[in-house]
Amino acid sequence: MIEPAPQPVKTSRRSKKSASRTSSNGLPLPAPVTHAGGPSVGKAGLDAREMALWNWVNVQNLDAYLQEVYAYYVGKGIYTIALTRGLNLLTVGFVIFFSTFLLACIDYSSIHNHTSLSNVIIPQCISRFSGWTFLFFVAFGAFYAWQCVSYVYGIVRLVHMYRFYTHVLDVPDADIQTISWPAIVARISKIRESNALTAAALSSSMAGSKMVQKLDAHDIANRIMRQENYLIALFNKDLLNLSLPLSRLPLPSFLRNYSRTGAGTLTRALEWNLRFCVMEFFCDPSGHPRKVFLKERNRTVLIEGLKRRFIFMGIINAVFAPFIVLYLLMYSFFRYFEEYHKNPSSIGGRQYTPLAQWKFREFNELPHLFTRRMHQSYPFATEYISQFPSSKVAAIMRFVSFVAGAFAAVLLLATVINPDVFLGFEITPHRTVLFYLGLFGSVLAVSRGMVPDERTVFDPELLMRDVVEFTHYMPAEWQDQLHSKTIHTEFGKLYEMKITIFVQELVSVILTPFILWFSLPACAPAIIDFFREFTVHVDGLGYVCSFAVFDFKRHGNVNVSPTSVPCYLLLANR
Amino acid sequence: MIEPAPQPVKTSRRSKKSASRTSSNGLPLPAPVTHAGGPSVGKAGLDAREMALWNWVNVQNLDAYLQEVYAYYVGKGIYTIALTRGLNLLTVGFVIFFSTFLLACIDYSSIHNHTSLSNVIIPQCISRFSGWTFLFFVAFGAFYAWQCVSYVYGIVRLVHMYRFYTHVLDVPDADIQTISWPAIVARISKIRESNALTAAALSSSMAGSKMVQKLDAHDIANRIMRQENYLIALFNKDLLNLSLPLSRLPLPSFLRNYSRTGAGTLTRALEWNLRFCVMEFFCDPSGHPRKVFLKERNRTVLIEGLKRRFIFMGIINAVFAPFIVLYLLMYSFFRYFEEYHKNPSSIGGRQYTPLAQWKFREFNELPHLFTRRMHQSYPFATEYISQFPSSKVAAIMRFVSFVAGAFAAVLLLATVINPDVFLGFEITPHRTVLFYLGLFGSVLAVSRGMVPDERTVFDPELLMRDVVEFTHYMPAEWQDQLHSKTIHTEFGKLYEMKITIFVQELVSVILTPFILWFSLPACAPAIIDFFREFTVHVDGLGYVCSFAVFDFKRHGNVNVSPTSVPCYLLLANR
Amino acid sequence: MIEPAPQPVKTSRRSKKSASRTSSNGLPLPAPVTHAGGPSVGKAGLDAREMALWNWVNVQNLDAYLQEVYAYYVGKGIYTIALTRGLNLLTVGFVIFFSTFLLACIDYSSIHNHTSLSNVIIPQCISRFSGWTFLFFVAFGAFYAWQCVSYVYGIVRLVHMYRFYTHVLDVPDADIQTISWPAIVARISKIRESNALTAAALSSSMAGSKMVQKLDAHDIANRIMRQENYLIALFNKDLLNLSLPLSRLPLPSFLRNYSRTGAGTLTRALEWNLRFCVMEFFCDPSGHPRKVFLKERNRTVLIEGLKRRFIFMGIINAVFAPFIVLYLLMYSFFRYFEEYHKNPSSIGGRQYTPLAQWKFREFNELPHLFTRRMHQSYPFATEYISQFPSSKVAAIMRFVSFVAGAFAAVLLLATVINPDVFLGFEITPHRTVLFYLGLFGSVLAVSRGMVPDERTVFDPELLMRDVVEFTHYMPAEWQDQLHSKTIHTEFGKLYEMKITIFVQELVSVILTPFILWFSLPACAPAIIDFFREFTVHVDGLGYVCSFAVFDFKRHGNVNVSPTSVPCYLLLANR
Repeated sequence: MIEPAPQPVKTSRRSKKSASRTSSNGLPLPAPVTHAGGPSVGKAGLDAREMALWNWVNVQNLDAYLQEVYAYYVGKGIYTIALTRGLNLLTVGFVIFFSTFLLACIDYSSIHNHTSLSNVIIPQCISRFSGWTFLFFVAFGAFYAWQCVSYVYGIVRLVHMYRFYTHVLDVPDADIQTISWPAIVARISKIRESNALTAAALSSSMAGSKMVQKLDAHDIANRIMRQENYLIALFNKDLLNLSLPLSRLPLPSFLRNYSRTGAGTLTRALEWNLRFCVMEFFCDPSGHPRKVFLKERNRTVLIEGLKRRFIFMGIINAVFAPFIVLYLLMYSFFRYFEEYHKNPSSIGGRQYTPLAQWKFREFNELPHLFTRRMHQSYPFATEYISQFPSSKVAAIMRFVSFVAGAFAAVLLLATVINPDVFLGFEITPHRTVLFYLGLFGSVLAVSRGMVPDERTVFDPELLMRDVVEFTHYMPAEWQDQLHSKTIHTEFGKLYEMKITIFVQELVSVILTPFILWFSLPACAPAIIDFFREFTVHVDGLGYVCSFAVFDFKRHGNVNVSPTSVPCYLLLANR
Repeated sequence: MIEPAPQPVKTSRRSKKSASRTSSNGLPLPAPVTHAGGPSVGKAGLDAREMALWNWVNVQNLDAYLQEVYAYYVGKGIYTIALTRGLNLLTVGFVIFFSTFLLACIDYSSIHNHTSLSNVIIPQCISRFSGWTFLFFVAFGAFYAWQCVSYVYGIVRLVHMYRFYTHVLDVPDADIQTISWPAIVARISKIRESNALTAAALSSSMAGSKMVQKLDAHDIANRIMRQENYLIALFNKDLLNLSLPLSRLPLPSFLRNYSRTGAGTLTRALEWNLRFCVMEFFCDPSGHPRKVFLKERNRTVLIEGLKRRFIFMGIINAVFAPFIVLYLLMYSFFRYFEEYHKNPSSIGGRQYTPLAQWKFREFNELPHLFTRRMHQSYPFATEYISQFPSSKVAAIMRFVSFVAGAFAAVLLLATVINPDVFLGFEITPHRTVLFYLGLFGSVLAVSRGMVPDERTVFDPELLMRDVVEFTHYMPAEWQDQLHSKTIHTEFGKLYEMKITIFVQELVSVILTPFILWFSLPACAPAIIDFFREFTVHVDGLGYVCSFAVFDFKRHGNVNVSPTSVPCYLLLANR
Repeated sequence: MIEPAPQPVKTSRRSKKSASRTSSNGLPLPAPVTHAGGPSVGKAGLDAREMALWNWVNVQNLDAYLQEVYAYYVGKGIYTIALTRGLNLLTVGFVIFFSTFLLACIDYSSIHNHTSLSNVIIPQCISRFSGWTFLFFVAFGAFYAWQCVSYVYGIVRLVHMYRFYTHVLDVPDADIQTISWPAIVARISKIRESNALTAAALSSSMAGSKMVQKLDAHDIANRIMRQENYLIALFNKDLLNLSLPLSRLPLPSFLRNYSRTGAGTLTRALEWNLRFCVMEFFCDPSGHPRKVFLKERNRTVLIEGLKRRFIFMGIINAVFAPFIVLYLLMYSFFRYFEEYHKNPSSIGGRQYTPLAQWKFREFNELPHLFTRRMHQSYPFATEYISQFPSSKVAAIMRFVSFVAGAFAAVLLLATVINPDVFLGFEITPHRTVLFYLGLFGSVLAVSRGMVPDERTVFDPELLMRDVVEFTHYMPAEWQDQLHSKTIHTEFGKLYEMKITIFVQELVSVILTPFILWFSLPACAPAIIDFFREFTVHVDGLGYVCSFAVFDFKRHGNVNVSPTSVPCYLLLANR
């Protein structure tokens, strides 16, 4: 019944199959309603508003429904979401098609003898494909067709949400970009309170214990974040060994050191696998923790099960890795090449690593609030990072830019004086002035970008305090050390260069199967124990991660900075 | 006697013909003096300082003189004004000459067969002009010659002002850029007080009632702004119907809606016409309201007169419209093409529309203070506008920039590897890689400029408060709605894209005759009534707009924001 | 024994010859130790830490040693200093080699007939040098070899310092970039206090009066700045006549005016000469003022000596001037041409003149703190300067950019429509569209850079206050005048365009001999008197400049702004 929400919050994929069978509090429903395909025959007499209200009253899986409501809010309404998804599909198609054209349909060897594109295109290049390539394209075609179908199905769900927002919450589409989330939460709570009455009017059999439950900001946040809270706790407690067991291999020590920390290996790809292996295993299709995890006697079985999931996903990953790497490479080349060529200094841009984001995140903090917090911290983080230029690198780059600048100056002067003679003048065989001007220009842009502005005023401590104000992340050992190079290095690993993160993503796609095979199975007992120990039952909410109900005292080693504020209190801020 | 001041404050053009006949308080002067052509024979015995003082004492039209003093101050002294005016003349000449050369003297059909400019220039192209074109050039030549003569005459007036500043006010030319206007006002007041004595010494017949009048900051502002205040009130009271009566025509509804608001039709061109039709009609040549307007019995005659003026100016506008449109097009192409080609994202720049400026302006607020206020608001206004990116446009632009970037990346890579082969390689017939690189580069610049920075933090309310602090414009219905999309749309119409404003100006030149013929005559009764009802007499100042003497209570529907401060109090700020 | 410290603080070059003879307080040492060449034989039994401590205890010239410690700190450790110096050497070599290649080894006359670099290179061009050129190259080769040797010697000294920091001060190399100078001072003081004990353990003969001296922040600053303080006082008291005696020559008056102020003639070249002539003469090799200067009876002899030094250095300067000018020209062309060509508006960048820096500097203020202060003031200074655009220049530049923009627009449009035909189209003989696009583009960039942003808000007073907060320079006559054009002009002379400063440096290299011959000898008596009158003896420090001990009252005409704070108090800030 429930379509998975887009990016921000991941819900159970299988929930739609079984959600209609039981209500969220386990009671069998007297009137199971199928509203996936639009208004059913039995409700033909109701108008749009009553239909939407009927659907809301009959929600069986409240978690998934709220997550869908939230995703609709974050995605900024039906048109933006549909447009974004559609264009994403088109982008994938474009990348595959254009890559194929570039790689298979142009005769590069004959390009020197022709001056026009039409002469070097291979006619009917598709039909010349070999068997395997052809098979791959058939497979991709099937995948793409399935995506298109699921896009259309998603639109149907969006229409459903659109009606909920328009008719039940009274939020027209034009306002969805500017209304605040607390305002939406307030309206949901209000509707909920008046539900019993409405529900009674629509279907007399519905009034019951479920309707009595109130639904406030805290409850909604807890329901939306139920699974995310477990993941936040998992990463904060360092239960997952994401490093490669390279110590057995004869490797140079720096590689071994690198792999031991595992900082560079928590990538989006691995994160997705972890979500799938761990959270899908732990939660039932409705998104609630499965009760079987709470009994110690099931421990061995569960551990075995989790290990099998890791191994299985490793195989799946290994099969798809080459295609994903190829796709990522082509996509990134299309996306970034022109940008970096035009403005090479932008290559030094940074962002928080996925691991850093998990560490900065707080329990029950909704993704859009977390993102806002990160965005507020970026200007300070960037300035803080630039406060510690390596004086050695700066000295070398100053020399490099001087030498490149000297060559460029001579070539430029010649070109300015007499562009016609010089632009085609060959400096080395087959390489003209134009080529060298481009080359030195790029070298200059990069090297100058790495020479720090000499007028910078050094004051890292103040800047770090500004950063901490937004990241809420300040380990105890940073106290009184905010000015030091050590903190800078540590923070630099959390706020990494985009290009490094990209390379890590690429490498990770290849390494992920190995991590799934060799490192993670060993963590299975700890993970199973963690779920059992840190799950509590809250009335009206069901089982949730115990950290999320703010019983911090009990749990020692989770990093909670002194500046952190319960996040649901921040809900009012947007 | 008084030359009209340059841009900021518009004075009566005809004042010079009659100003020497009566003094500003209507008394016939015993010794009419002609000082337009420099020192006259009768004052040969006086030195420069005494001459300047003599001229000041003998001012008959105090309003026009003060406006001239103010214009000289705002224009930053004799050299800057003379230079600016001279270069403006040269610019006009250059545009006409260069356009003619481009349109008439180059044989574009033969350009493919030649490689040098001298081969494609048509010799003696001027002599080949047809009769009408020739007539036009003769007319333009006459206009230009007249402008040159009037420039020389303007210099004479500037010399006069220069002497007033140097000798009477003791402000040397070097200081005029930095001295504050209140300082100048203070000196004028002081001179005025000691006038009676000086005047007596110079010409015993001069001492009289006029000398007794004091002249403080408020008086001076009121005199300079006498006509502007009426215009501010006219626009704020929405008395002018500037929309086109398109409802009678079979037009698509969006066009009809557009024209009904009239927001896009108040352009500089229409403003100039309104000034000429309404204010010149209402004021006598000395710049004071004509007493005939204050009697209700003249109403019908005046309404008829005003209607005739509108119709007449409509005809004049219709005659000149084609030339003005052509000139504006050529001028703008010369002025902006290179800038937008180099930096296409600057095309999104915004400024306040003329209508917004009239709405933001306060009574008795001098133009340079108003401009300062607007400049202070620009950074906040720009940031506020960028807070509401359309997520739909952003999604589309992200896709467009991806596709354009992909093509550009492939072409760039080829060019970097082998510039000599690829720069001239034809992608489509007659279009080389170079052309496409330029094309995709432009598309990328525009589309990337429209994708909002994803790290922006959303906080429109705070920014809008900053804007309001400077614009002093916050309609009552904005209260508690500052975060909403509605306010954003409304403000976006006041702070419009420069390119939109330019297009509106162009269109307006063509539409103005129609507005003058069909819309404005119907407003004539309301305008005449407005002048009669809102004119009061103040001792020592004469007749002024009643709004300008801060009797706000009386007038209900003028927008005065709670933050507004009487502007003459702000005079001390500069 | 002591190698001169790098840039920031200049120490006596000859100190190494004689420093081992007497300790810093003049007592003959019982156990003179040579530690220039690394651990000597006698200390073979000691480990690295004890060695470093031994060296520290045996320092005879405390001033020079502290200056070296400071230079090591400012230079950011051994690797950065060694790298910077090495790359500086390489840069010099590159400039000479590449200049020679460009000037001597390319046959520019035949370049039109060839399309490849290898065809126009003159083979064996070095061997074709004439006798004088060859001689010059031999001389340069010798100089370069000597520089290399001195570089290696410098490394030895750096290793020495490295050991001092690592073992005595406990500051590892990784921390040296971030540790604050006060922290280092604190460690030095602490070590000093425990010295007596340590020294006794190492060499029983060492314990004595010297060890008892404490060494606090004030003492250290005073020792490091001993000579700088005299120079600050010299420049502040305007004792040096740096203008050229041009009044005798038949020159146009503006040139005579220019030379009279001398503002443009205090350049780095002249500064270096003054240091060498005056300070080296005044101080003994250990960096302390020579006692012979303190007796009035030596006055005549000293004046004669100083005059001779000026004359002699004038001759040296005259001999080397052509080479230095040539080198500076080539270096600057290599360094800046590409930058200014790419971004011509950066040509308007400004920096403080050397004279301004001497005026802003305070007694006992260490260079790195002074630099920090200057860097903090730059943003405000730049904004302040831009507050006073010349309205005349702006008017002209607006016209120039319009005309250039018009031509560029036409050429660009043609190029966009049909790049292949137009890029090579000749506008004037041998000058194509490409050339003119480049030309107009440069003109546009420069002229647009000089048109002020019309949205600037004028508020110079506030900005000047911000500047003064950091420069600590506000002459009494600026009071209440901060908004005026006069202050702007005066400040503009202190915060000059970089390009002007560069031209002044170049011209100064040629003028310096004349200033040394004709202007400075006349100042010799005043200089000698100044040294005698303003030197005081402080216990534990020796003779220092009396201004540096904060007895401000005694000295009338030194500019001390009311906002200035004793700088050693600022030491804690870094």
